[in-house]
Amino acid sequence: MHNSQEGRKLKVGVLGATGTVGQRFIALLSEHPYFVIHALGASQRSAGKPYSKAVTWKQTRPIPSAVREMPVHECKPEYFASCSVVFSGLDAEVAGDIESAFRAAELVVFSNAKNFRRDPNVPLIVPLVNTSHFSLIPQQRSLHSPPLKKGFIVTNANCSTTAVVVPLAALEKAFGPIESCMITTMQAISGAGYPGLPSLDILDNVVPYISGEEEKIEWETLKILGGVTETDEGLKAFDMHARHPFRISASCNRVAVVEGHTECVSLRFARRPPPSPQQVREALANYTSDAYALGCPSAPRHTIFVHEEPDRPQPRLDRDFQQGAGVCVGRVRQCRVLDIKFVVMANNVAIGAATSSIINAEFAVNKGLIT
Amino acid sequence: MHNSQEGRKLKVGVLGATGTVGQRFIALLSEHPYFVIHALGASQRSAGKPYSKAVTWKQTRPIPSAVREMPVHECKPEYFASCSVVFSGLDAEVAGDIESAFRAAELVVFSNAKNFRRDPNVPLIVPLVNTSHFSLIPQQRSLHSPPLKKGFIVTNANCSTTAVVVPLAALEKAFGPIESCMITTMQAISGAGYPGLPSLDILDNVVPYISGEEEKIEWETLKILGGVTETDEGLKAFDMHARHPFRISASCNRVAVVEGHTECVSLRFARRPPPSPQQVREALANYTSDAYALGCPSAPRHTIFVHEEPDRPQPRLDRDFQQGAGVCVGRVRQCRVLDIKFVVMANNVAIGAATSSIINAEFAVNKGLIT
Amino acid sequence: MHNSQEGRKLKVGVLGATGTVGQRFIALLSEHPYFVIHALGASQRSAGKPYSKAVTWKQTRPIPSAVREMPVHECKPEYFASCSVVFSGLDAEVAGDIESAFRAAELVVFSNAKNFRRDPNVPLIVPLVNTSHFSLIPQQRSLHSPPLKKGFIVTNANCSTTAVVVPLAALEKAFGPIESCMITTMQAISGAGYPGLPSLDILDNVVPYISGEEEKIEWETLKILGGVTETDEGLKAFDMHARHPFRISASCNRVAVVEGHTECVSLRFARRPPPSPQQVREALANYTSDAYALGCPSAPRHTIFVHEEPDRPQPRLDRDFQQGAGVCVGRVRQCRVLDIKFVVMANNVAIGAATSSIINAEFAVNKGLIT
Amino acid sequence: MHNSQEGRKLKVGVLGATGTVGQRFIALLSEHPYFVIHALGASQRSAGKPYSKAVTWKQTRPIPSAVREMPVHECKPEYFASCSVVFSGLDAEVAGDIESAFRAAELVVFSNAKNFRRDPNVPLIVPLVNTSHFSLIPQQRSLHSPPLKKGFIVTNANCSTTAVVVPLAALEKAFGPIESCMITTMQAISGAGYPGLPSLDILDNVVPYISGEEEKIEWETLKILGGVTETDEGLKAFDMHARHPFRISASCNRVAVVEGHTECVSLRFARRPPPSPQQVREALANYTSDAYALGCPSAPRHTIFVHEEPDRPQPRLDRDFQQGAGVCVGRVRQCRVLDIKFVVMANNVAIGAATSSIINAEFAVNKGLIT
Repeated sequence: MHNSQEGRKLKVGVLGATGTVGQRFIALLSEHPYFVIHALGASQRSAGKPYSKAVTWKQTRPIPSAVREMPVHECKPEYFASCSVVFSGLDAEVAGDIESAFRAAELVVFSNAKNFRRDPNVPLIVPLVNTSHFSLIPQQRSLHSPPLKKGFIVTNANCSTTAVVVPLAALEKAFGPIESCMITTMQAISGAGYPGLPSLDILDNVVPYISGEEEKIEWETLKILGGVTETDEGLKAFDMHARHPFRISASCNRVAVVEGHTECVSLRFARRPPPSPQQVREALANYTSDAYALGCPSAPRHTIFVHEEPDRPQPRLDRDFQQGAGVCVGRVRQCRVLDIKFVVMANNVAIGAATSSIINAEFAVNKGLIT
Repeated sequence: MHNSQEGRKLKVGVLGATGTVGQRFIALLSEHPYFVIHALGASQRSAGKPYSKAVTWKQTRPIPSAVREMPVHECKPEYFASCSVVFSGLDAEVAGDIESAFRAAELVVFSNAKNFRRDPNVPLIVPLVNTSHFSLIPQQRSLHSPPLKKGFIVTNANCSTTAVVVPLAALEKAFGPIESCMITTMQAISGAGYPGLPSLDILDNVVPYISGEEEKIEWETLKILGGVTETDEGLKAFDMHARHPFRISASCNRVAVVEGHTECVSLRFARRPPPSPQQVREALANYTSDAYALGCPSAPRHTIFVHEEPDRPQPRLDRDFQQGAGVCVGRVRQCRVLDIKFVVMANNVAIGAATSSIINAEFAVNKGLIT
Repeated sequence: MHNSQEGRKLKVGVLGATGTVGQRFIALLSEHPYFVIHALGASQRSAGKPYSKAVTWKQTRPIPSAVREMPVHECKPEYFASCSVVFSGLDAEVAGDIESAFRAAELVVFSNAKNFRRDPNVPLIVPLVNTSHFSLIPQQRSLHSPPLKKGFIVTNANCSTTAVVVPLAALEKAFGPIESCMITTMQAISGAGYPGLPSLDILDNVVPYISGEEEKIEWETLKILGGVTETDEGLKAFDMHARHPFRISASCNRVAVVEGHTECVSLRFARRPPPSPQQVREALANYTSDAYALGCPSAPRHTIFVHEEPDRPQPRLDRDFQQGAGVCVGRVRQCRVLDIKFVVMANNVAIGAATSSIINAEFAVNKGLIT
Repeated sequence: MHNSQEGRKLKVGVLGATGTVGQRFIALLSEHPYFVIHALGASQRSAGKPYSKAVTWKQTRPIPSAVREMPVHECKPEYFASCSVVFSGLDAEVAGDIESAFRAAELVVFSNAKNFRRDPNVPLIVPLVNTSHFSLIPQQRSLHSPPLKKGFIVTNANCSTTAVVVPLAALEKAFGPIESCMITTMQAISGAGYPGLPSLDILDNVVPYISGEEEKIEWETLKILGGVTETDEGLKAFDMHARHPFRISASCNRVAVVEGHTECVSLRFARRPPPSPQQVREALANYTSDAYALGCPSAPRHTIFVHEEPDRPQPRLDRDFQQGAGVCVGRVRQCRVLDIKFVVMANNVAIGAATSSIINAEFAVNKGLIT
């Protein structure tokens, strides 16, 4: 049995605590069954203030009382020494150095930042998909200089990637490799953080471009859906879906939605004939994440909720289902160009960000990776 | 030379004059160089009232003074007998019978309704693309019972079809047949008419479904981009792109935009190797419609305006360019699944509706089909 | 002690169960500590269907499982005979006759409809303000023909009225009569029901008019804030604030907000000198409703939450606080024309509609008016 | 006759040319009958670049071809020496020093910035209201050190002030002094410039606060509607409406509208009995600005357009009427607290900003103040 099941609480820290993702971490962690917020980190400008003075709180729930008066520290490992887990909502400009320093200080970091996603020793884990990639952690520790006993970094994926890899993983599990996939996203403004998108750019408008986003989807999907192989030198390595070539093409758009990314997906299976829409629907609905099976408390009961109504999922109506921890799929039907097409919607600030980090941490606790 | 060039004005009528498309017809025709609004038709409820009393005017320009006091008639041919052209913005529920009756009365009808789009003797014409389909008109007249001397019906396409067929036509002209095409639309609320979409359905939301829309795009595109062949019986027929199979898959979404449909398009050419993005950009920018070449006054100078900025076209910024009579393309780039992908944006109430009918009528006048 | 505190559940019915307010009733009642949904009523068109087939569910939570398969009945008293309370979310077109019939059948009706709000024997109760008006119930029963033993009707106020009377009541309690009050509302689209406002009317727009709304605010406020007097004939009557003349002027606007009415209020007290902004802030924050004091489970702990930040309350951030059961006030400051001005925001579908009816019913249970 | 009427063109410059107001100046001036853009000024960062490279153009019309390649200069008088008029769209942070320097160099500056609005020698002119305040210019020049021959500064008002002073001026002209006025605004996001308001703050929301805005309305209105008196020292001075005390109370809100400020206004006249709503309607409709009477080409024919429909004006439908150069009023009716209430809507980026400066300059040309 892992620690938490014995009723012991684990102290956790939050880096970038005043930012958009950091606020979401705090809102979620304040109600967590065994993680307890112990330390908050932000920029030098915020350091020394009580949290309620340092933050411009933009969540719909008030600031949790437990953190209102908690002091904000600079993001230095010494202030987080007693934290079993550190969640990072840092901006990419500073996340690289800070997260490195925390790992070097034997801290465990679950990061939303993109800096380490392409690191060959850092798992990029969508907790409803590829928790098997935790198997790289021992190697990450041993290759570190000096080798680490406890510290490691795990990243989670970009929010738009997260939405789509969940159904893709379910379908590969059921029907074998996918050969190609076209994704067109309609992404919420909260994906850009705060202040993020100027209102003049998006009210009564669509912006058919998000810098770097298409590349992230195309690359991250391969790392997440790929396996772990062994190199000639005896090292573990992410195979980037090398067992079967997988072509992905993404087109990313920003729309006037506060929360919830909607994505139109078409795909072609390697297997001929391909599964029918009904078989696809069933495979999606039956897919269960290992995280849920293992009892991670933040993992959703329905990894993928499959809508039957012709006009769902919709971000405003479906983004809060299961606290946004799962993904919703609808309109599963045949595609005249590839095989199957459908719509997927996921809450970009829940499963697309903070919730993913937290489930990853719960999984790591469960597997004994955190002590 | 045709009549208009001799300075003669042509009387025109508008059916469905109080509706969304009808209002747009009136706004455009009130500034037309040679069409003059002569008669207005609407439902029985409006008949007998002056136009300004019958309409709930929703355009940003005031009601043109020339029609304010013009009486609204029922949609019966007798009230339109002296009209050289009748524009129809009727709802599909009534358009079929009324437009039939007008044609039978030797009137010329340019219709936005969907009722006759699939009729094998009625051209479905996007004026920036396939004005060559006017060649079917003599057969439409001769096969009518009794045969007609002057009357005919021409339809224009659904607004979301119109946007995409313009660049597709330009590319087929330059590079030969397209083999497959994926289209994901983000459509404006004005495409649904008035009252149309309830505000509760679309504010802070995306609706990933528009009833019948995907089928329209997939079918209409083939009729428009196809040619005219001769059957064994010596009749002309639309070949539905039969010279080369063309697979089209559309996914339609409604977004919180007032005007302007944005569509993400990916396509594969038959020709190997395919053209480069730069060749595609040039072919699009150089494409000129026959309607413009012939001097139709409402045809835009730039059939396709190609944006170089990475984040354009955008509906709010680009929908009024050239009074919305052309289409805008941007983000031409390689696609990892098909060959090329790009974004197209077109004003759904201008080139996507009333403007198309008007250019079609200008073309017919120019070709002597209207007397 | 009342029944509920002995752990007994009370069966309740919902009229207009498929409409916007009805859906909200069902969502709230499905989690209620002692009300249990027992019967659902809707139009003839829905009758006979299971609820999940009859409704177009538009709430962000899924249909509660307890009502999914519950049959929908016509709104006839016989189907609701065993209900201790009937909540009505009926449209005004039908509410009058149906609610009358239910009362005549000795049923207790808590209604959101406007039909009986001006009835001199029907209390118009905002549960955070004037539960004292329940004192009219015995007279309502005795004057009914034939006299009733159990049946009665209580209405709650229009959503925009509800928001403003709560702080007004708090201020009159603390500082004596208000002499005049100017109210400018910015109301959410959900206040108009579904389909309600066409999206073309409100996207990128303000509509400075809501039919009948200003009159409702001006009249209902007087009934709610007024007292109960005795007439020469020995009858009880609402005094419409006659003890001190109170002039109210409202200007109502619709804005592009899904949920939450925001209202700018300025007022002048009879008392000279008037209270200071700080005194007003304290009086608002200290005000507690009798419903909360008595332990009504849906009454909010903070009847009025007073914001100190200069830019709050805001509908998107504050409408879900306390499940929308209270009201939020901010920007309390001096007014150069009257005495004091402030901003009030209330959730129009929670405290502005269904939640008010439910707290009213809880209060009536507590007072022994429901058996 | 003034110069322009002899067909001579006047060279003008634009300061802050790359900003929101500067772009609007350029769009308007590129179609002006006698002002010709000659020089552009922006920050050091833009200096030296052709305009099209320096600007992120956000207007719905393309960059006018005449300025595409025009070089952008730093905002130093030497580059604008041959300009008869300089329009300033500078930010307040830099406008003070730059505009001072331009005036000292004998240049004529029409400014949108707030820096000089409270200067006792600088007129604050809404061109549809108080062009009589140009009478202060000789004194502004003579009191300058050293005295000026040609240079001066004129400011125009804040956009939300401009909307309301036009009907207030019309009513004071017709019915004498107004004693008190309550104003609640619903302001468009474009009023905050670019990037301005973060989209997360305004989508599905109202922000009931705009920093400093209420004070601006309350103070500027008095300066604009006030007269010019002579002091004991023989100097001219703005009397701030001292001839009759005028109390103004404003409440400012930001709403999800791109362009067009809507304001609910209630007012009390000194005169008893007050005029009727119908008299008010007529006075508003009949009011004509001196600028229009004198033939200023950008002055609107209808200074105030009075709507009869109950639900107008609305920003989306009415902001482009007369290119946004006038104001629209509707819903004139009695107020139960003060005398009369109505709704006013004005285009904040047209008459509320650039258009006002341009009409002011046209007026000055007409009066011979510019040579």
